[in-house]
Amino acid sequence: MPTVNRQWVLRRRPVGEIEPGDLEFIETPLRALADGEVLIRMIYLSLDPTNRIWMSDIDQYLPPVEVGDVMRGGGIGVVEQSRSERLKVGDLVNAGLGGWQDYAIAHEAMVNPVPRMPGVPLTAYMSVLGMTGLTAYFGMTDIGAPKPGETVVVSAAAGAVGSIAGQVAKLQGARVIGIAGNDAKCGWLANELGFDGVINYRREDVGQALDRLCPNGIDVNFENVGGQIMDAVVARMNNFSRMPLCGLISGYNLDGLTPGPADFGRVLMKRILIKGFIIIDYLPRAAEGFAALGGWVAQGKLKWKDHPVDGLENAAEAVKRLFSGDHDGKLMIRVSQEP
Amino acid sequence: MPTVNRQWVLRRRPVGEIEPGDLEFIETPLRALADGEVLIRMIYLSLDPTNRIWMSDIDQYLPPVEVGDVMRGGGIGVVEQSRSERLKVGDLVNAGLGGWQDYAIAHEAMVNPVPRMPGVPLTAYMSVLGMTGLTAYFGMTDIGAPKPGETVVVSAAAGAVGSIAGQVAKLQGARVIGIAGNDAKCGWLANELGFDGVINYRREDVGQALDRLCPNGIDVNFENVGGQIMDAVVARMNNFSRMPLCGLISGYNLDGLTPGPADFGRVLMKRILIKGFIIIDYLPRAAEGFAALGGWVAQGKLKWKDHPVDGLENAAEAVKRLFSGDHDGKLMIRVSQEP
Repeated sequence: MPTVNRQWVLRRRPVGEIEPGDLEFIETPLRALADGEVLIRMIYLSLDPTNRIWMSDIDQYLPPVEVGDVMRGGGIGVVEQSRSERLKVGDLVNAGLGGWQDYAIAHEAMVNPVPRMPGVPLTAYMSVLGMTGLTAYFGMTDIGAPKPGETVVVSAAAGAVGSIAGQVAKLQGARVIGIAGNDAKCGWLANELGFDGVINYRREDVGQALDRLCPNGIDVNFENVGGQIMDAVVARMNNFSRMPLCGLISGYNLDGLTPGPADFGRVLMKRILIKGFIIIDYLPRAAEGFAALGGWVAQGKLKWKDHPVDGLENAAEAVKRLFSGDHDGKLMIRVSQEP
Repeated sequence: MPTVNRQWVLRRRPVGEIEPGDLEFIETPLRALADGEVLIRMIYLSLDPTNRIWMSDIDQYLPPVEVGDVMRGGGIGVVEQSRSERLKVGDLVNAGLGGWQDYAIAHEAMVNPVPRMPGVPLTAYMSVLGMTGLTAYFGMTDIGAPKPGETVVVSAAAGAVGSIAGQVAKLQGARVIGIAGNDAKCGWLANELGFDGVINYRREDVGQALDRLCPNGIDVNFENVGGQIMDAVVARMNNFSRMPLCGLISGYNLDGLTPGPADFGRVLMKRILIKGFIIIDYLPRAAEGFAALGGWVAQGKLKWKDHPVDGLENAAEAVKRLFSGDHDGKLMIRVSQEP
């Protein structure tokens, strides 16, 4: 049994972008298990924009990670030691918020077996069949609720959430326009995922492109970004349109507050619904989401990309790729090899 | 039968506050009625913040009033001539958007008798039992939906909409805090209407007062104002709180756009729902609203104030009181005497 754990610990809260020294990579001894606990060897560690939020001492949906604590993160691992009746050695499990470390010790109540489907790689349970897939599914179907023929815009559309959100909207019969940050991503959205239109916000004026691609206005804005891109979308939202507010990544590295839509009067005039949501609110309905997403995966109706980066030691550097866009699919750390 | 009509015509679009010359008071001949039409002598003309919106050439929920057209406005009048089978001379009617004029000619389909209740003054059908009452009722019950014991904040709380919205929330069992612009209004809210707390935003720091009056945070923000007052409220909104967006009066006289909440990240973190609404969306459910409001009025459970200003010729000046706060209850013009 392992006796040493490697961990990323939050040493100080980042100001702006994450800098060397904000997180420290340390070794600590592994304690023995208590009754009901399992020792999980982490295989995949999820890197998500919300990691940056957790590092800040702001009022948020979970307590911030305390300075000195292991960095919080979700992931998948394998049980290597068990004092649980329910979980046995060798089980592949969702490790909850197991953290940025080689090994997590968790009570069985916080851990569930990965519901494997034949032919589906394990990384998919970090993405399309994991938290980001569920985020996309519930935000789009429960809040966005596009009707056939409606126009849906997704920002950060090539991201782990956005790419699934757009495809879910397509499966509802909507026209889907994606906004992404380079031509390769835009090409993937248009050619592989069947998006009806794509906008490279680094090369095009987003407002002009939306005017061209959304002649009937916008009925659903699946908002991941905030800032000027959000303003360009909101300015074209229709009467009774919906805006699932999933993320505001443009602001996560900023010191100040991230403002709402520049034209809030339009929210009034057009009777727009804006709803912030966090995937943990929907976990009581997770089975519904897995059933829908799993069905589409089995039918080949959803496509996705996973981007594992090898080595826990690279986590603090790799997480920054979420903000530069320098990744291709769901970003994760391969902490150890699959069994 | 009258042959001359006095009308306020929009001559140019106001820049900022309404200035002399933006509206012109003219006399025009009255045409003869067509089949199905009635001639309505206006008795009360409603003055509302939305009048200012209608004067601007911005994308809004109705077409703007065209330059050269009679200013749009709702009101109550009496039928003086009828070519309708349904409406007869002497009927008191809601004149729809009859306009700023002595007489309105309208098709019977646009006109409905005022559903009088015994002992209720006619002006009440311009306020608590009119559009502003319905606005308060549906915004609070359908979007805000306070549960017993929840904390509700209402801005512009002494206004025609806010004062009813707050009382409706009280009738749902909520704690209600009102924000208003002078001590007399605050006193009325606290002493007559039973608000649980009041804030004079001209004399107190709104954020500090909210901290004192809302120790458990804010569950519903009935938003009438926008700007810094809105930001102070949003900063204290709870998980899963709701924000019926009824108005943004702080911005109606501004040239630029009225921005959304300064801390939009909170809308995400706290999973806040924001919903713009306009009363015309709820008119199919008007009977439900009238039944509820009428029942409370009959039981003496709702209080309200009406502020009629005599003389159509004073409309252009009087409407500015909505923005200075220099009025006491629902502002309206008494165009002519009640029968």
